[in-house]
Amino acid sequence: MSERPAANTNAPALVDDRADDLVDDLVHGRRRFHALPAHLSARERAEARREALARLTGADLEHLGRYSLDDEVASSRNCECFLGAAQVPVGVVGPLLLHGDHVDGPVYVPLATTEGALIASTNRGCSAIRAAGGAQVLAEDVGMTRAPVFRTSGVRQTREFLAWVEDNTARLGEAAEATSSYLKLMEIRPHTFGTSVFLRFRFQTGDAMGMNMVTIACDRLVRDIIEPETGVPCVALSGNYCVDKKPAEINFHEGRGKRIHAEVVLEAPVLQRTLKTTARALVEAQYRKNLLGSIASGSMGYNAQMANALAAFFIATGQDPAHVAEAAVGVTLIEPRGPEAVVASVDLPDVPLGAVGGGTQLATQQEALRLLGVQVDPERPGAAALRLAEILGGVVLAAELSLMAAFTSRDLARAHERLGRGRGD
Amino acid sequence: MSERPAANTNAPALVDDRADDLVDDLVHGRRRFHALPAHLSARERAEARREALARLTGADLEHLGRYSLDDEVASSRNCECFLGAAQVPVGVVGPLLLHGDHVDGPVYVPLATTEGALIASTNRGCSAIRAAGGAQVLAEDVGMTRAPVFRTSGVRQTREFLAWVEDNTARLGEAAEATSSYLKLMEIRPHTFGTSVFLRFRFQTGDAMGMNMVTIACDRLVRDIIEPETGVPCVALSGNYCVDKKPAEINFHEGRGKRIHAEVVLEAPVLQRTLKTTARALVEAQYRKNLLGSIASGSMGYNAQMANALAAFFIATGQDPAHVAEAAVGVTLIEPRGPEAVVASVDLPDVPLGAVGGGTQLATQQEALRLLGVQVDPERPGAAALRLAEILGGVVLAAELSLMAAFTSRDLARAHERLGRGRGD
Amino acid sequence: MSERPAANTNAPALVDDRADDLVDDLVHGRRRFHALPAHLSARERAEARREALARLTGADLEHLGRYSLDDEVASSRNCECFLGAAQVPVGVVGPLLLHGDHVDGPVYVPLATTEGALIASTNRGCSAIRAAGGAQVLAEDVGMTRAPVFRTSGVRQTREFLAWVEDNTARLGEAAEATSSYLKLMEIRPHTFGTSVFLRFRFQTGDAMGMNMVTIACDRLVRDIIEPETGVPCVALSGNYCVDKKPAEINFHEGRGKRIHAEVVLEAPVLQRTLKTTARALVEAQYRKNLLGSIASGSMGYNAQMANALAAFFIATGQDPAHVAEAAVGVTLIEPRGPEAVVASVDLPDVPLGAVGGGTQLATQQEALRLLGVQVDPERPGAAALRLAEILGGVVLAAELSLMAAFTSRDLARAHERLGRGRGD
Amino acid sequence: MSERPAANTNAPALVDDRADDLVDDLVHGRRRFHALPAHLSARERAEARREALARLTGADLEHLGRYSLDDEVASSRNCECFLGAAQVPVGVVGPLLLHGDHVDGPVYVPLATTEGALIASTNRGCSAIRAAGGAQVLAEDVGMTRAPVFRTSGVRQTREFLAWVEDNTARLGEAAEATSSYLKLMEIRPHTFGTSVFLRFRFQTGDAMGMNMVTIACDRLVRDIIEPETGVPCVALSGNYCVDKKPAEINFHEGRGKRIHAEVVLEAPVLQRTLKTTARALVEAQYRKNLLGSIASGSMGYNAQMANALAAFFIATGQDPAHVAEAAVGVTLIEPRGPEAVVASVDLPDVPLGAVGGGTQLATQQEALRLLGVQVDPERPGAAALRLAEILGGVVLAAELSLMAAFTSRDLARAHERLGRGRGD
Repeated sequence: MSERPAANTNAPALVDDRADDLVDDLVHGRRRFHALPAHLSARERAEARREALARLTGADLEHLGRYSLDDEVASSRNCECFLGAAQVPVGVVGPLLLHGDHVDGPVYVPLATTEGALIASTNRGCSAIRAAGGAQVLAEDVGMTRAPVFRTSGVRQTREFLAWVEDNTARLGEAAEATSSYLKLMEIRPHTFGTSVFLRFRFQTGDAMGMNMVTIACDRLVRDIIEPETGVPCVALSGNYCVDKKPAEINFHEGRGKRIHAEVVLEAPVLQRTLKTTARALVEAQYRKNLLGSIASGSMGYNAQMANALAAFFIATGQDPAHVAEAAVGVTLIEPRGPEAVVASVDLPDVPLGAVGGGTQLATQQEALRLLGVQVDPERPGAAALRLAEILGGVVLAAELSLMAAFTSRDLARAHERLGRGRGD
Repeated sequence: MSERPAANTNAPALVDDRADDLVDDLVHGRRRFHALPAHLSARERAEARREALARLTGADLEHLGRYSLDDEVASSRNCECFLGAAQVPVGVVGPLLLHGDHVDGPVYVPLATTEGALIASTNRGCSAIRAAGGAQVLAEDVGMTRAPVFRTSGVRQTREFLAWVEDNTARLGEAAEATSSYLKLMEIRPHTFGTSVFLRFRFQTGDAMGMNMVTIACDRLVRDIIEPETGVPCVALSGNYCVDKKPAEINFHEGRGKRIHAEVVLEAPVLQRTLKTTARALVEAQYRKNLLGSIASGSMGYNAQMANALAAFFIATGQDPAHVAEAAVGVTLIEPRGPEAVVASVDLPDVPLGAVGGGTQLATQQEALRLLGVQVDPERPGAAALRLAEILGGVVLAAELSLMAAFTSRDLARAHERLGRGRGD
Repeated sequence: MSERPAANTNAPALVDDRADDLVDDLVHGRRRFHALPAHLSARERAEARREALARLTGADLEHLGRYSLDDEVASSRNCECFLGAAQVPVGVVGPLLLHGDHVDGPVYVPLATTEGALIASTNRGCSAIRAAGGAQVLAEDVGMTRAPVFRTSGVRQTREFLAWVEDNTARLGEAAEATSSYLKLMEIRPHTFGTSVFLRFRFQTGDAMGMNMVTIACDRLVRDIIEPETGVPCVALSGNYCVDKKPAEINFHEGRGKRIHAEVVLEAPVLQRTLKTTARALVEAQYRKNLLGSIASGSMGYNAQMANALAAFFIATGQDPAHVAEAAVGVTLIEPRGPEAVVASVDLPDVPLGAVGGGTQLATQQEALRLLGVQVDPERPGAAALRLAEILGGVVLAAELSLMAAFTSRDLARAHERLGRGRGD
Repeated sequence: MSERPAANTNAPALVDDRADDLVDDLVHGRRRFHALPAHLSARERAEARREALARLTGADLEHLGRYSLDDEVASSRNCECFLGAAQVPVGVVGPLLLHGDHVDGPVYVPLATTEGALIASTNRGCSAIRAAGGAQVLAEDVGMTRAPVFRTSGVRQTREFLAWVEDNTARLGEAAEATSSYLKLMEIRPHTFGTSVFLRFRFQTGDAMGMNMVTIACDRLVRDIIEPETGVPCVALSGNYCVDKKPAEINFHEGRGKRIHAEVVLEAPVLQRTLKTTARALVEAQYRKNLLGSIASGSMGYNAQMANALAAFFIATGQDPAHVAEAAVGVTLIEPRGPEAVVASVDLPDVPLGAVGGGTQLATQQEALRLLGVQVDPERPGAAALRLAEILGGVVLAAELSLMAAFTSRDLARAHERLGRGRGD
């Protein structure tokens, strides 16, 4: 990670006349924002854009320019027409005591959020888990998927095509794996309607979330092998049978990315002292809200607030926050265990995430990953991403527990009232 | 917004012995991270936390400390156990030419993302919309909801309870509206199963997203009026018939927050020159991917990538990114109009957002809102939020159009390959 | 197969040469099965068809010809190309003790089924309900729906069109009600996507199920008023936003036809003696099967076997058995009440049914309705259909209870084994 | 109602005093309806029940007693507390020209329905298919399923249990297959949430629909092997992850029973002459109704009226009409093929049916099967059921085509008006 002073606390970079001309060109539409001279640095281009936008709209964009991330990398890999950085507050929860295959002990977890009460509440959940001796966590790599859609002439060609795919699965796997050493084909799952054939390719992708490498591999297979050899045209490289960034039953059933489970047994003393509730009240709130309420609303998520923990964790650790759209479909359960205890669990079947690539390479996000002890180990590919997933499972469990307990003791609205008056932290 | 130099480029705040003792207490668990001395400033508390975490985990958290947001506000309203800020790259798309009730002309839109190609692609969509003379946009305020769940003794009490609610709706509205001058009750929609009764309160909330004010109002109604007068206990203030941050049919049908529509007619020249595609190819890709593929996968979203534009817009403008979980269920359509043109549209029935409150008050997010010309006007309550929603509709349309066109010309994988090698911007 | 005289074997109608010629024409394709001479009676036409099919396929259709229903009515109103009648075994359950607005006392219920064990099992449920003092039942008329779909030129026309509909709702109601004295417009609910506008008309239809009268009314409105006055064309008179004979969230939320609730409290003695189970076992089976299992499978029905009771009741009473497709989406709940009792309930939001029209006029179906005391009373339009619905609710509850209890005591498979060997009744 | 001699009016069986005493006992509750003396014949028992019900309710049940089915078999295998038979009108459609693996040529299809216009409309669809040279049909046996649900103590036991299942799959298959020579285990698919484990057993079941034999096999596996060897208790033998008689995504994706496809290409002349429509109108109606309308309503079925054809076919051929609840979730597509033709198809992923067992053994239902040429061939187990499925696919396609065409020419309401006045056939 580059070491340099935070950007615009120094002298402005664009002071000369040429710079002013450039901004003028942007303002008057003589030059497009994405077409700035190649000799300028990322910082200079960002500054020119901010200045032009400020003149165009009257909006001062000073804070957007106060970043310390590596703008050369960000502007070329993450974000075109780079202007600067949004600052999202990060807090910490923990220690969160977890027992899994890839984490075993206490962790502190950074969460990026603007929703007051989320961190305080999750922290209470962490306390309960700690008091209970820790949560069991389990993450499985169920693979990243991409499903091109093809058009056949009808059922006869469809049958031939599906037979060809079955016969050539091993070959397609080899060709895909040649595009990246991290890829391993797990399955090709077909689905047909009318004249459309969807092939859902599922791959292990090591420590990366893997959407891009899977897309590149599928493109290669489609262009170089499937279309030429079968004559069946591909209509779209992603046919929404993948399915990416949409809540979907296929992902709920088959899983996508990581499938995560976390669970904890809470005895009466922990329920009373830490969560200010009882087994009976928690079980009833869970039943009427997360099961019956979700059924009544036709919800695909049977939980209290998984999306909150997911979004905060994703932003802090450099994941793609658009994946909240699919990851939030999980199931929270709180079941009686004897008359006074409960077993609480979360199941998240569809969590795309990675320890490398995408936003994970950015400065603050790297720090978050290091804080979590998430480091890629070439000897154990995929293990870093699974550690990240197991920790996420624990955080989601903590957040769910505390909010569910708050419902039973009427704390939710009061927390919001207090925070609305700026009395948090 | 406070003006002050970016944090830790100055002299460290915690140099004396007492500070070191404090960090030591945190490291050794003698003090909890959320229980720091009240006399310390937010910056000092954040610094102590970062230092303790660095000692505990070996992770250097320097960049997290390089923020310029107002940490007193952030730590008390947005984010407990505040450590610092995550920096998320922001780029700009536009000009996006829109025609709506609250926006009429070109706008530049900031998007916070780490997904390479998103901004470049959305920019191409903006070009197509511009070349087509602009997109029609429409946003409606369908109201923010909260649905407590109650337990009755059976069908007889349920009938009495529902009759009571019907008789007392006006009174409940008045009591709710007394908790905030921005609230206006639109509807109480009941639903029952077994012994559970859900009351879905729907309110207009002015320019705020409104979840918190609605929660506070419902808590007041439940505690002060409904429970005492009916004797029917509330089991959870949110009964998931609201439903917040989950993809759900009730929101898809009834709407939640803002319901947004954007549309544009694209003639053959624009399709060919800007989008490198044809009407026929676009319509077929739309049909097989966004309709059949989503049906095949049991998806609740019939679109290509709405979540991407939503998440990037939400983070840049200070919305709650967890709302991506519900907002991403929209429908993209591309229909033939004559033999060579198309009419393309997006419908998003469930977009909670606001121009004030939550993350909108933070430094970089405020700048983004000003860039969009979103300013609250006391004379026209709600208008700023509707402007924001109309612009979002246009951005989503631009993103959808460009990606759908990319499928037809096989650009998607190539864009990812190029960006994977750091050749964006 | 028992040999005994039956209906039309007494005096063959078609003995002469012309009859033989007619059959010959059918066999050789010189005449179509639906185009038989008008002077023939329904019985003669049926006989000619059976004879021709027998010659064509070698299949003897003797039993199909042994019917006693009024074939002139059946062939002109219910079933074109009439051949005869299928015989479906009918058994009786009861007495079923019910307390509702339209039934209060014991009833015997005929069920038409070929699924061994269904009637015996439902009878056991009736015993449990009786022992518990009866079930509370409630049926509401939420109205029959039809939703034409229209095509507009875009959002501007859509807004005008929706405004027109709102302004003209009362007029449309009057025009619809002029087509039948039983119709009463309850609501017009619009929905829009892209350039499609759906108008979901909801009507009360007296004692009839009402699908046909609603269709006729909508056709009149569309042709005579909506299209001429707005210029917006209707693409299909049913736009699947109705939605008829498909399981759908809109019907689950809004209801369709009758919304039915039935409930009973079962104390420990009844659970033990009649159902051979305990509160705890029943509650757990309900939770893991009807809630978690249905969530796991992405089911729209949260019940054990509602479709069985529905189909058997529908066929016996002359309802349309295709409506099982939507009626089966109900919710069964079994909740603890104190440590040893349960409150069990069924909620069926979407049950189209009627006491007149359709198959209810047929001979055996009329008898079933009379057995249930379902008789249209001109003074209380709709009451007969509501009585039918309340009874159905009770039957479904009885069937659910007994099967759920069977799971807890492992009776299910044994019942099937016994019946497989022909040891029922 | 026509008056004519029918079955058991000839010689009343119960004329003596003892019979009268028996009826009296039933009427006064001294004897239960299911507990009649064993020495009585099925006919006598049915007659006693009808007589008692007639006295109790005043309802004459004469027509219910006019049946010719084998009441000894029906009352012991299909329908306890047997009273008689419901008569459902049966009509014929065809010839329907089909090309599949198990049918190749014209067939006449009996349908049992009370919905006027269904048969006439389906017949028009058959004409269109015939004019087009026939429809391609394909049926696959995807297997009958049953999914017991188990309770574990938590994630550790769940992992052990799943590992055990994987290790013992072959053994479980052998044990299951020992319970019936028709069974063949295809897959055990697990799913877990919290402490629940569902095992979805999938079997081929020869020519039988197979629900009962699969239930018996699973019961044996659970009782004799799984529970004793793992110590993990089964909570319900059917855990709704099967899922039987509910519309469900798992069945939509994985299939259940038979998966059926039928398709036909219709050129302009057939569209115009037979269906009175055009390619363009049909494609648009399909798009706005079956796709957009079903999406708008949150329907799990993307079709016009599959349930109608399914219910009529199921009743006529002795299938379980409760299976309409799951079978109706299919997809109808009508896509343009060149400017003036269409390719129309139906996909039904979840059709449980059989050529033997259940209601297929009854008199009129046997005749229907013979009419279709469905005969079990010991040399080709399963082939008869697949023939039945292929024919059903063709019938559904015919019904869909004609109704969709009717929408484009506004025929629907007029057909109902005509039939409402008794002018069918």
